[in-house]
Amino acid sequence: MREVFQQELQEVQDRLVEISTLVAGSIDRATRSFNESNVALAETVIEEDHKIDALAAELDELAIQILARQNPVARDLRIVVSALRISASLERMGDIAVHIAQLSRYRFPEKVVPKGLRGTFREMGSLDVEIANKLTELLRTEDMDLAEEIRNEDDKVDALHLSVFDKVLGETWKGQAADTVDATLASRYHERFADHAVSIAKKVQYLATGDWVPQDT
Amino acid sequence: MREVFQQELQEVQDRLVEISTLVAGSIDRATRSFNESNVALAETVIEEDHKIDALAAELDELAIQILARQNPVARDLRIVVSALRISASLERMGDIAVHIAQLSRYRFPEKVVPKGLRGTFREMGSLDVEIANKLTELLRTEDMDLAEEIRNEDDKVDALHLSVFDKVLGETWKGQAADTVDATLASRYHERFADHAVSIAKKVQYLATGDWVPQDT
Repeated sequence: MREVFQQELQEVQDRLVEISTLVAGSIDRATRSFNESNVALAETVIEEDHKIDALAAELDELAIQILARQNPVARDLRIVVSALRISASLERMGDIAVHIAQLSRYRFPEKVVPKGLRGTFREMGSLDVEIANKLTELLRTEDMDLAEEIRNEDDKVDALHLSVFDKVLGETWKGQAADTVDATLASRYHERFADHAVSIAKKVQYLATGDWVPQDT
Repeated sequence: MREVFQQELQEVQDRLVEISTLVAGSIDRATRSFNESNVALAETVIEEDHKIDALAAELDELAIQILARQNPVARDLRIVVSALRISASLERMGDIAVHIAQLSRYRFPEKVVPKGLRGTFREMGSLDVEIANKLTELLRTEDMDLAEEIRNEDDKVDALHLSVFDKVLGETWKGQAADTVDATLASRYHERFADHAVSIAKKVQYLATGDWVPQDT
């Protein structure tokens, strides 16, 4: 029984890694579509999000079946509950990638990224992609150094998010209302994406150390 | 055993109702603080959010203990898993109320609601409050007519959300960048709040009918 359970937990972990890999690809394409106003790339993000949703739903089914069949208790039980929460956060990160992709589609053929913020959004996009890739590795390896790196990169994303508002509300801002709306939404999405990764990292930390954290996304 | 389990499920339901009641109070104060630029009211929302977080964490503990002790299967298991998800959404709705309250605090003593959008935000705020109150009743009574009403009111919130962008991007918009940022964020928060309520309503529908829905917030 115990061996079957370990195999099933391994299956859960493999699926989380698979979903996280798709999310990382999605945010990579979404941020590139945003920074390059590439509407074809944006379409692929939007069209393929259903794969992430479907895999997350399947993973939830698997977790529920494990709960039913194996009646895990103590730490094992919390691992399965954590997996349900991690899957919810990954699914949401996929949605946020879609929102970023949609921004480039709405404004096409206009450039979506407002002048004066192109460097900032390239940097935020790179950080989100790095965070997503590190998250996949963290889920695969449970290497806690990666959790620390994700937290540090999230701090950088938060600082950039604040700098967007400083820029938009500053005296030198020459953007139209549409630029202000785009900057506000895009910055918020980039920041939320990174927040979800930090929240998942905390849960993985539990899986590795036994320190349970209440949900906090 | 079965009777104990039913009592524990009742306890879960009671606690969901308790948290939802706090969330409804919080969104009521948050939207009033926003519409009236009442910073004292905003502070109460911000200061009291930890109560919602703590109750949600306690509810999660209870649900995990039920899973461990009772080993529920089939529909009973899904009810407990649904409760974990509902608690996560309620906790998030509390966070969104805080974000709305923070907007009025940031701009104080300036009015936060941009001219030309005061009626729209009053309407969105009223709808969010109504939705939250109906959600509490839905959790208490499992009256599915309320789920339908919540969905209809969410449609109205979505329409108002789009109308905010029409306004802000229209030719008559005279707002400064700060007004545009406030309108964009506030509208997004109001819309997300209602989305979470719809997502919870779907899960309650499962509790009542057995139609499992994958997570979708």
